[in-house]
Amino acid sequence: MKSQKDLEIGFDVPAKIGMSVEDVQTPALLIDLDAFEANLTRMRQLAAHYKIQLRAHAKMHKSVDVSRRQMEIGGAMGICCQKVSEAEVFARAGFDNILITNQIIDPVKINRMVSFCAPGRRVICCVDDGANVADLSAAASGKGVVLECLVELECGSQRCGVSDMAKLVEIAAAIDSAEGLKFSGLQSYNGRIQHHQSFAERQAAEKNVASVTRQAVDALRKAGLECECVSGGGTGSFAFEAESGIFNEIQCGSYAFMDADYGRIENESGQRFDQAEWQNALFLLTSIVSTAQDGQAVCDAGLKVQSVDSGLPVIYGRKDICYIQCSDEHGVIEDKNNTLSLKDKLMLVPGHCDPTCNLHDWYVGVRGGKVEALWPVSARGKAW
Amino acid sequence: MKSQKDLEIGFDVPAKIGMSVEDVQTPALLIDLDAFEANLTRMRQLAAHYKIQLRAHAKMHKSVDVSRRQMEIGGAMGICCQKVSEAEVFARAGFDNILITNQIIDPVKINRMVSFCAPGRRVICCVDDGANVADLSAAASGKGVVLECLVELECGSQRCGVSDMAKLVEIAAAIDSAEGLKFSGLQSYNGRIQHHQSFAERQAAEKNVASVTRQAVDALRKAGLECECVSGGGTGSFAFEAESGIFNEIQCGSYAFMDADYGRIENESGQRFDQAEWQNALFLLTSIVSTAQDGQAVCDAGLKVQSVDSGLPVIYGRKDICYIQCSDEHGVIEDKNNTLSLKDKLMLVPGHCDPTCNLHDWYVGVRGGKVEALWPVSARGKAW
Repeated sequence: MKSQKDLEIGFDVPAKIGMSVEDVQTPALLIDLDAFEANLTRMRQLAAHYKIQLRAHAKMHKSVDVSRRQMEIGGAMGICCQKVSEAEVFARAGFDNILITNQIIDPVKINRMVSFCAPGRRVICCVDDGANVADLSAAASGKGVVLECLVELECGSQRCGVSDMAKLVEIAAAIDSAEGLKFSGLQSYNGRIQHHQSFAERQAAEKNVASVTRQAVDALRKAGLECECVSGGGTGSFAFEAESGIFNEIQCGSYAFMDADYGRIENESGQRFDQAEWQNALFLLTSIVSTAQDGQAVCDAGLKVQSVDSGLPVIYGRKDICYIQCSDEHGVIEDKNNTLSLKDKLMLVPGHCDPTCNLHDWYVGVRGGKVEALWPVSARGKAW
Repeated sequence: MKSQKDLEIGFDVPAKIGMSVEDVQTPALLIDLDAFEANLTRMRQLAAHYKIQLRAHAKMHKSVDVSRRQMEIGGAMGICCQKVSEAEVFARAGFDNILITNQIIDPVKINRMVSFCAPGRRVICCVDDGANVADLSAAASGKGVVLECLVELECGSQRCGVSDMAKLVEIAAAIDSAEGLKFSGLQSYNGRIQHHQSFAERQAAEKNVASVTRQAVDALRKAGLECECVSGGGTGSFAFEAESGIFNEIQCGSYAFMDADYGRIENESGQRFDQAEWQNALFLLTSIVSTAQDGQAVCDAGLKVQSVDSGLPVIYGRKDICYIQCSDEHGVIEDKNNTLSLKDKLMLVPGHCDPTCNLHDWYVGVRGGKVEALWPVSARGKAW
């Protein structure tokens, strides 16, 4: 029987340090700290092997504590963010090398971004439009700071970025000559190929990324513009960027936690990523709340604690049961042999880590069955 | 040219009262207050017409301010919540008639729930398991309070709830005789049929709901257990529950805001819900951040500000352009005639309101092109 005191903990936060994992309030995001640290160490070793710099993407986890460990344990030399409000959280926490892998267009956002440019802190953003250069320059020079800019190259993402090399050189030259701005190189990231299951498909698509990136670097060089930084690559593709010889930074994020979608993709030997490359370090802890129907159970993890854009979650360590339906607050688990009981806990591997993490306020770091850390999702909801 | 002061507002919140909608920081959730109030008024009239009580579901919006208006303008007599932590937010805000439409199993959650049962405040939860009755009773009687319980009937949701009438009566009888608990009736909600596009399909499925609910009420009556409350129905089905004569409460939520998925379903005359029944009152305001690629534009509203489980968002008032792809922080908009420019703003109708609202910290209430209200999403992230 739990004491009254035990019953009163764990509600404004899902856990307290030292408690058993079984007592964590569900649904909650767990980080398996051993697996997380193993992923960080592996990426540090790979980056060293490829002689490439790691700029770990913080949009995935939005946590100052996770980024700190990516720097300290994982060999990252800086971070990426995706939004100004997100970058601001990291700037306030002392990060001094921040690439915002996005176009910043709105005047309020530009003003806010240059307000945390400072001597000793590199702030870099992406540009794919000539008029934007003038806006960025006016804001940076008005504050007397230097904002670094990468021109974004369209390399297959079919999203942002410039395709035309003459246009690309024109924007780079405009940045180079604009007061308050520094032309720092190229952003060349293809998000579309990260999740192709087949290694050969990713490799083939990546040849185009390397080829257009090389064309862009050459075209800029011809115009007298050297790329100090050529940045791109994600968890599904970074080895290709690293081997291409044209990139000097990779922007991986998901490697630190993994998710069900990345877990399914294959390495060169045809082995799944979650078996041979990276460990599942992120779990959604959930409890069974109903077993009233024969052959199924219902858990307390639905759409409000996970994103299903990349598929339903996988139940970790259980092949006999399957998460088959997700509604706002419930998950239906097919359990043909009625193995599950009320209060049982399961660990789900979310389909897609980035938008899942953004739904939570806390990471519960666990090791050896005990809660070792509680880290806030520092930039949760920072979408501006 | 905006003044320095203008540039510094709107970052910890997306807007300030009185500003023009065009100046709201994006992405942001807007409520069109006229449309919202029209929906509330319509539901009040419909509930009066059907002589049924409205217990408006707060899980949809998680906002104390929205619920207050559903009570004051919209004729609701109480609210539904889905989680204990969510209900607690509403209890603290003074709501005194709260049905948690869910099984509460975990001892910490049970303890927390009975801690806001109080004289003058009805707190009601659902039960579909006999052992749970003992846990609820121990907690409620230990605190010297009365917790009301509805037995949940499986009426087609294939999720929680009891199918077997003998079992249902057994649980109800256990509640009725348990110290600290009051048997208050039935929860009978079929979530699966809410979104069937065809009226005839919804009507046919609903016949089963009414029929099993009537069987359950009759079986309970035979055992001497009267249902004070028979609660169910959602935005897609409530008229059927109301007309059945067996329900006395409906639990609609989405009617207040609407979304793209509900907008597509049809009424008896074959007209779309968003044309003939309810007005779109919820919008995701987004800005164009890249037009570098011919025939498309990219906006700043991706997976972290909307849930796409029920489909991609619809662009309000624009048939010539289409939101075709959603990634973490971007939306790709097909714009064959290149009509969009950088900084242009668009209003998206989210695919699914509930999990979209849960991603935001603020609602920006607008009327006549001006910001009239800023309401916190009071129970955002309250998933415990």
